[in-house]
Amino acid sequence: MKAMGPIPAGFAANADGVLAIGGRSAFELLESEGTPLFVYDRAGVERQVARFRRAFGEVGLHYAVKANPYPPLLQHMAGLVDGFDLASAGELGILDEAGLVGDDLPLSFAGPGKNDSDLAEAVLRGVCVHVESEGELDRLLGIASVMERRARIGVRVNPPFGLKGSGMKMGGLASQFGIDHERVAAAVRRIIAAGAEWRGLHVYAGSQSLSADALIESQRETVALAGQIAAEVGASPPEVNLGGGFGIPYFAGDAPVDVDAVGATLAMTLRSLPPLLGDTRFVIELGRWLVGECGVYLTRVIDRKVSRGKTFLVVDGGLHHMLAASGNFGQLLRRNYPVAVANRFGAEPEEEVTVVGCLCTPLDLLADEVMLPRAEVGDVIAIFCAGAYGLTASPQAFLSQGAAREVLV
Amino acid sequence: MKAMGPIPAGFAANADGVLAIGGRSAFELLESEGTPLFVYDRAGVERQVARFRRAFGEVGLHYAVKANPYPPLLQHMAGLVDGFDLASAGELGILDEAGLVGDDLPLSFAGPGKNDSDLAEAVLRGVCVHVESEGELDRLLGIASVMERRARIGVRVNPPFGLKGSGMKMGGLASQFGIDHERVAAAVRRIIAAGAEWRGLHVYAGSQSLSADALIESQRETVALAGQIAAEVGASPPEVNLGGGFGIPYFAGDAPVDVDAVGATLAMTLRSLPPLLGDTRFVIELGRWLVGECGVYLTRVIDRKVSRGKTFLVVDGGLHHMLAASGNFGQLLRRNYPVAVANRFGAEPEEEVTVVGCLCTPLDLLADEVMLPRAEVGDVIAIFCAGAYGLTASPQAFLSQGAAREVLV
Repeated sequence: MKAMGPIPAGFAANADGVLAIGGRSAFELLESEGTPLFVYDRAGVERQVARFRRAFGEVGLHYAVKANPYPPLLQHMAGLVDGFDLASAGELGILDEAGLVGDDLPLSFAGPGKNDSDLAEAVLRGVCVHVESEGELDRLLGIASVMERRARIGVRVNPPFGLKGSGMKMGGLASQFGIDHERVAAAVRRIIAAGAEWRGLHVYAGSQSLSADALIESQRETVALAGQIAAEVGASPPEVNLGGGFGIPYFAGDAPVDVDAVGATLAMTLRSLPPLLGDTRFVIELGRWLVGECGVYLTRVIDRKVSRGKTFLVVDGGLHHMLAASGNFGQLLRRNYPVAVANRFGAEPEEEVTVVGCLCTPLDLLADEVMLPRAEVGDVIAIFCAGAYGLTASPQAFLSQGAAREVLV
Repeated sequence: MKAMGPIPAGFAANADGVLAIGGRSAFELLESEGTPLFVYDRAGVERQVARFRRAFGEVGLHYAVKANPYPPLLQHMAGLVDGFDLASAGELGILDEAGLVGDDLPLSFAGPGKNDSDLAEAVLRGVCVHVESEGELDRLLGIASVMERRARIGVRVNPPFGLKGSGMKMGGLASQFGIDHERVAAAVRRIIAAGAEWRGLHVYAGSQSLSADALIESQRETVALAGQIAAEVGASPPEVNLGGGFGIPYFAGDAPVDVDAVGATLAMTLRSLPPLLGDTRFVIELGRWLVGECGVYLTRVIDRKVSRGKTFLVVDGGLHHMLAASGNFGQLLRRNYPVAVANRFGAEPEEEVTVVGCLCTPLDLLADEVMLPRAEVGDVIAIFCAGAYGLTASPQAFLSQGAAREVLV
């Protein structure tokens, strides 16, 4: 038997013993929406936002669209957060189609590979571009000049430190992200001299960290670095984006981030700012932490078979929708996401099973040797922590299997 | 400096020093088709098929559609191989739209998660279903009976051995694939008793093996196992699919499979068959080996930047098109695919660079610290070995970046 990650709080069985999401039975959702299905729980998103507000008070909250760009979710999120952070012109297009591009919600656009057309689109729509290199800044200023528009520009900083213990360390090293911190002041002076609107600084030091201490340290270093750069420039950054990096528990032994501790320490840091940061607006940009635990992937059992003493449940979904849960094409240290039999939610585990997807590859492994209540053909398997980097981070065309549905409840 | 895999044979520079694919300049292809672009070389596919025919004589050759389902490639392949092996009803749909479903080319359909509608579609179109469990066999016979059609059925066997040293071992273990070999004879008797058309056996022991010895041993064991099952059943299997598993060199130190050695040994094995296999047609099913080296992914340099002494080329493509080359979302032992500056193909390496994709994640790493001729913004990077499990095995919607184009030349 192998362990599974913890099922996120907020999910319970209804009177029939079926997993309920947003008050609706998982079974009924699959019937009405189709299978396999991603279900996103709007109340869960609201709870996370409320948790953030309690912990961080006046600090702004941006949503990183890349975590989940499902349009109804974006529309819901627009009423909850203070801005959207984009990672591509494609995301700007999605927001536009969802009616979310206007003056109401600040938009910023980061990413190391923005081409000229991406930059022109951002200038046209008034999106703040977070430049990632001096070369990109040159191109952006040139494009804005040709368009006779005033570009809104933030500078992404490659900091001299990284977020310790994070899933992906993104600072302290040579990097495609941002301008090395010692060259940032020169870039800012260039923006100001060119007559563009300097919107501030953006530091993203890592992601998927469960350690409050690491986040606290990274935020403290980021504020100090912003103060140092502001002093070099001799001007106040209107905004400092502190990045995000708050993780969620996926695997056995993972515990949630203590966001109250992070918020309390940040509040102390922000009470003793240097004068040049006195009017600066600080924001935190979150994706996974806001939506990851609010999503459930539901998939139906197609076959139940025993091979050499091992019981397999074969489902109609698979790694083409939930690559991360399968172990990303053969991770050495694959671990199990939280998984349940949705129509027997909360029932006692009865047998050890291996849940595999429908793809013709042994990599399509959704739960390896886990204890579950007995499931038969037609039953529904729920995979949790599917709200962020689920469907869009999966190879949906792989083996030409069917598409997944999505619904916000 | 880190090593790269070997650039496959058959690629050369044109008179301008630009990589030519199928006689066309990579630069001109990007201009006419758009960027980023997958280019598949039909002559390269033909060369691999010819190599197979030389090595394997009368043994049949099936194409595993999942390796690359690009319709023009399938149409080209249809004139070269003896059948298509499918892994989903979606692939059947693609073949149908490409006008390739008929009586001319045998089609077989494997995969552990076929639902009732998939099975009905296969029966309707006369596709041979390779059943993967007794439960699936029950469903298939029931569906064919309701449809008043005679199903064509092969049995996929979970063998007692695996393909040694293969990228993915798929036999010798408890498995979602196939019926455990000791229960296959009973399943075959059931097919015959039900009046269905028994088409034979299918054994797939692993994939991406570069070892001729391992392939030879696996084929020899497969033929012996087929003989043993035929004896138990007391009937001749019309066809035995020996699987595939021929790898291609991706990384430094990889050498091509010695297919002539594999073919010569298989020929000897087939000369001393037991009588029940005397009229059996043997086939090998290949995907990656046929098309992998024939594909090149072309992507344009958007930015060139230096961070802390390291030079980065940022391109307009990335892991959303070529996930495997990036290391599948953070492989522990990531290695470099073969990569070149397409418009300076064959020029002397001048500098150490790291090629990264346009995505806002450090995982989007296409070539790490490799020696290349100097490349500037606007130049074209070629990533080789992109013909199999490239675009369809990548998370194309990730970060909502643009689509890739494909072209057969």
